[in-house]
Amino acid sequence: MPTILGQNQYGKAENRVVKITRDGDTHHIKDLNVSVALSGDLDDVHYSGSNAHVLPTDTTKNTVFAYAKEHGIESAEAFGLLLARHFVDDTEPIHQARIRIEEYEWERIETSDANSRFIGADEVKHSFVRKGQETRTAQITYDGEGVEVLSGLKDLTVLNSTNSEFWGYIKDRYTTLKEDYDRILATSVSAVWRHNYTGGEQERTPNWEKSYAQTKKHMLHAFAETYSLSLQQTLYQMGSRVINSRPEIDEIRFSMPNKHHFRVDLSPFDMKNEAADGAVYYAADRPYGLIEATVLRDGATPRIPVDMTNL
Amino acid sequence: MPTILGQNQYGKAENRVVKITRDGDTHHIKDLNVSVALSGDLDDVHYSGSNAHVLPTDTTKNTVFAYAKEHGIESAEAFGLLLARHFVDDTEPIHQARIRIEEYEWERIETSDANSRFIGADEVKHSFVRKGQETRTAQITYDGEGVEVLSGLKDLTVLNSTNSEFWGYIKDRYTTLKEDYDRILATSVSAVWRHNYTGGEQERTPNWEKSYAQTKKHMLHAFAETYSLSLQQTLYQMGSRVINSRPEIDEIRFSMPNKHHFRVDLSPFDMKNEAADGAVYYAADRPYGLIEATVLRDGATPRIPVDMTNL
Amino acid sequence: MPTILGQNQYGKAENRVVKITRDGDTHHIKDLNVSVALSGDLDDVHYSGSNAHVLPTDTTKNTVFAYAKEHGIESAEAFGLLLARHFVDDTEPIHQARIRIEEYEWERIETSDANSRFIGADEVKHSFVRKGQETRTAQITYDGEGVEVLSGLKDLTVLNSTNSEFWGYIKDRYTTLKEDYDRILATSVSAVWRHNYTGGEQERTPNWEKSYAQTKKHMLHAFAETYSLSLQQTLYQMGSRVINSRPEIDEIRFSMPNKHHFRVDLSPFDMKNEAADGAVYYAADRPYGLIEATVLRDGATPRIPVDMTNL
Amino acid sequence: MPTILGQNQYGKAENRVVKITRDGDTHHIKDLNVSVALSGDLDDVHYSGSNAHVLPTDTTKNTVFAYAKEHGIESAEAFGLLLARHFVDDTEPIHQARIRIEEYEWERIETSDANSRFIGADEVKHSFVRKGQETRTAQITYDGEGVEVLSGLKDLTVLNSTNSEFWGYIKDRYTTLKEDYDRILATSVSAVWRHNYTGGEQERTPNWEKSYAQTKKHMLHAFAETYSLSLQQTLYQMGSRVINSRPEIDEIRFSMPNKHHFRVDLSPFDMKNEAADGAVYYAADRPYGLIEATVLRDGATPRIPVDMTNL
Repeated sequence: MPTILGQNQYGKAENRVVKITRDGDTHHIKDLNVSVALSGDLDDVHYSGSNAHVLPTDTTKNTVFAYAKEHGIESAEAFGLLLARHFVDDTEPIHQARIRIEEYEWERIETSDANSRFIGADEVKHSFVRKGQETRTAQITYDGEGVEVLSGLKDLTVLNSTNSEFWGYIKDRYTTLKEDYDRILATSVSAVWRHNYTGGEQERTPNWEKSYAQTKKHMLHAFAETYSLSLQQTLYQMGSRVINSRPEIDEIRFSMPNKHHFRVDLSPFDMKNEAADGAVYYAADRPYGLIEATVLRDGATPRIPVDMTNL
Repeated sequence: MPTILGQNQYGKAENRVVKITRDGDTHHIKDLNVSVALSGDLDDVHYSGSNAHVLPTDTTKNTVFAYAKEHGIESAEAFGLLLARHFVDDTEPIHQARIRIEEYEWERIETSDANSRFIGADEVKHSFVRKGQETRTAQITYDGEGVEVLSGLKDLTVLNSTNSEFWGYIKDRYTTLKEDYDRILATSVSAVWRHNYTGGEQERTPNWEKSYAQTKKHMLHAFAETYSLSLQQTLYQMGSRVINSRPEIDEIRFSMPNKHHFRVDLSPFDMKNEAADGAVYYAADRPYGLIEATVLRDGATPRIPVDMTNL
Repeated sequence: MPTILGQNQYGKAENRVVKITRDGDTHHIKDLNVSVALSGDLDDVHYSGSNAHVLPTDTTKNTVFAYAKEHGIESAEAFGLLLARHFVDDTEPIHQARIRIEEYEWERIETSDANSRFIGADEVKHSFVRKGQETRTAQITYDGEGVEVLSGLKDLTVLNSTNSEFWGYIKDRYTTLKEDYDRILATSVSAVWRHNYTGGEQERTPNWEKSYAQTKKHMLHAFAETYSLSLQQTLYQMGSRVINSRPEIDEIRFSMPNKHHFRVDLSPFDMKNEAADGAVYYAADRPYGLIEATVLRDGATPRIPVDMTNL
Repeated sequence: MPTILGQNQYGKAENRVVKITRDGDTHHIKDLNVSVALSGDLDDVHYSGSNAHVLPTDTTKNTVFAYAKEHGIESAEAFGLLLARHFVDDTEPIHQARIRIEEYEWERIETSDANSRFIGADEVKHSFVRKGQETRTAQITYDGEGVEVLSGLKDLTVLNSTNSEFWGYIKDRYTTLKEDYDRILATSVSAVWRHNYTGGEQERTPNWEKSYAQTKKHMLHAFAETYSLSLQQTLYQMGSRVINSRPEIDEIRFSMPNKHHFRVDLSPFDMKNEAADGAVYYAADRPYGLIEATVLRDGATPRIPVDMTNL
């Protein structure tokens, strides 16, 4: 047979698991989209169709829901670690598990003032509205020895309406862009960061929830506070701020589309449209500049793939 | 000619206009997606291709941007009224204009505490993060006489983790559903409401921003506070709360998919999964119940179309 | 109570039903997305939450699948008629049913030549590849008396690379567009047409499959053959061609975005880019002209709503 | 500085370029979405914001359009090779270019029979309808020495209505799936294959168009002709068929979601629903099995990344 099998993996993708926890009348919610990918001793199923080493994807789905009940969902990362270890440790032919998770955040519907007026009842503690800002992501990989935990987010859209310039670039035959000393800088941040935690028994486990909240905050602050000469510079400041502020993180990669906001040329109508006066912009869809880079703690080995994906 | 032309309209859709207003170092942002649809004396362009009565869609686009600069954008509704009146009053063959607007909300990136630590600078007042919750909508129609203003929102996803039942329904040959006395009730609210404002000179113009904020709040509160025996009941309570609380609104229509959260059957694994103990749910995509209804102030004439669309 | 209930409807949306028919080794496939909306004596469920008149949406889902088995799926329209009549005739409180259907077309994977080389077997008659062009739609409404059948399609993207002009339009203060005597005309056709069939016992039922195929063909031909001075003119020719060619159709409505293809200005690079020489175009996303109109058989009453939606 | 820059790249993504070629009255169309990513001596722009080594993304966009005019678009792969070589060879700080392309196929609107009836004119040769089946992809990478060409496709949805089984798998505590001896097998194929062409002067350049058409055909035939015991087996057969049939290809990777079609349980309605009789299926969305694997020519080195992305 002149062809051979290379890297392969399989599992159930996009298991939409919602766990409610009740603390008296106060409810809590965790809302995840969990994707399982398993690798191991799986040549036969490809070559001959023998499923003797195959844990059905349907079973991996059942396991996600059963584990959510048995163990609860403390955080996406902690839940992913439990699942990854189970699949590898408890299924002989499976040698590696990769769990990818998207998390959707909810906030409480605050009703205290309304109650007094409408129903005189206690405040409602079981009502939520989806926050709808970024999607939080996590990827947990376990190979029977160590673990790798990547946390991340996507679709966090940010905009600075000033303190951004772009000039001094290469001009070749095909260059028509005019230099700009006061432009809007906007992007939709996708980021993945790698924790240096490897799952050892002596290791202290990060506080995943706090780590995420702080990392997001540092990115937002660095974005806001950087006087930007290029989106690359802003990206590096964001990554550097995270690495410098969060000792548990060694590496971060960004994929940041330049969401162009072009100042509209109103001169045909004898109108000025200067940034300094508060301008009108056209928010463009395509094409868009796409800036991608990794920022590392000095000495760390890069492990996050160049192309970031989820699911 | 055995065929004739019926209702017709045209214009530029999805003009993505962003207006920055500068108040010293404090910037404000309005982010709209504006769609123009014009009707009038337009038989010829359909029958013969004569464009003599056609204001190009490209011109309607230019007008959106120029008006944003000339008049600013106080609110989606106010901006739409300006545009609608312009197209009808200033273009002879155009007899009706319908402006549809989506609005995307931004919130400030708060940096005060970060500044002190990192750069010792003043708080940043020009940095924003997209809120990402619901999309706000507006539709303004002007026919040379009166105006009709519909405001709305879409993709506002809400969930009650208890206080929802469903039982006592018709059972026919094809019914298998089990009655449920403690289920999750979740929906993604799309709503359109009609202001009784008709644009008369003596009329008081609503405060569009405040009206929107209050209407959203009333919907959320009614959703949270209703002990629900059906999604229809919840819908009606939401509509009724809005009409009773906002005298400027005479009619509201909802389209509310029942975002099913099915309690997972864990009995094959000898596990219980009772709602009262904090259950695990499977969030389903399709199919979904879809509940749509109009709630009216008694005596008001329904004018919102059965099928709600935007753009 | 100062608020009242207006138009309302409910049902299960997006039931994805696939029916395989086996004719020996030759299989046939029908792939539909069926949405049910029921209206009737439903005040109580809104006012008090009583479900006594409510056939659960879950039951409507079951009915779709059971009917597909019991009756097969001859066409989307025929299947929708069966369902609509069942819900109204067999459920006392239900007075009107509206069935909306999307249909996805598959074509056979032709394997005859391959077989001879690889497996010497008979031609495979159970393998399909999704065609992926337009989505076919249907809407069937039944109120206990007559039926209304709308057929349609969406996302049929067409392009003429010449024989399109645009000039002679109104120029106002905000007009900057240059006249064009050889432009690309492209659009993504959404269309809904109304059959004059009303379901009477004496009436001849249209051949829904043939009617659809012919209507699509006429639209494509009229698009291709019209020398266009405006997209409105092309739209009218398409509608007129359908009405004139298909006696079973009395009304058709189009929603046609002008998918702009802008000839790129290459003059900064000392390059010409004339249409006559085979030009390079930039395919733009937003904004886009949006042209919507109804074409009617003379004497017919317009019944298709201005805003077309599906589901 | 305790942080350092890792892998980075930038460029303009999603340049939607359409090229018309006129051969008398017969027009041809190429419709591409081109994304440029450049790497090189770019530390400064990240560390200090100096753009001295930055060719603006706007310039890369202009180049795409200008090259389409200057050189035409013979195929996605050939066009990508031209662009990649230009960016690296003609821009000193740029050391690597990666061009990613999506291609959308159009087919002619055939009008011959219609013409005779309606306008007696010649057949129209400039009218197209978008085929709408799979999206073709290509990725061309050039580092100043050799090239790597990946071709591919995505969203090619295929279905076998029989000749698929699934049984004999591992059963653990969480397994509930029943074995199936006659199921529907459906998937949406995403595939990327690597040509062994490296751009050497003595090398023969593949016929990219023919290579693509044949590769797609081989995948479809292998899918149709494989009696499948698992989706993994089908995948391997598809890959093996391609490698064995196309000497220019050394490696292929698939990402194939198992688009589940569940046979509906109609027993509550006293109805049978056996596959052998032509069954009714529910086409599910999420979750879905996801099968991914690489198939290699024996001796070839795997180079296609585990996670496939486009853009």
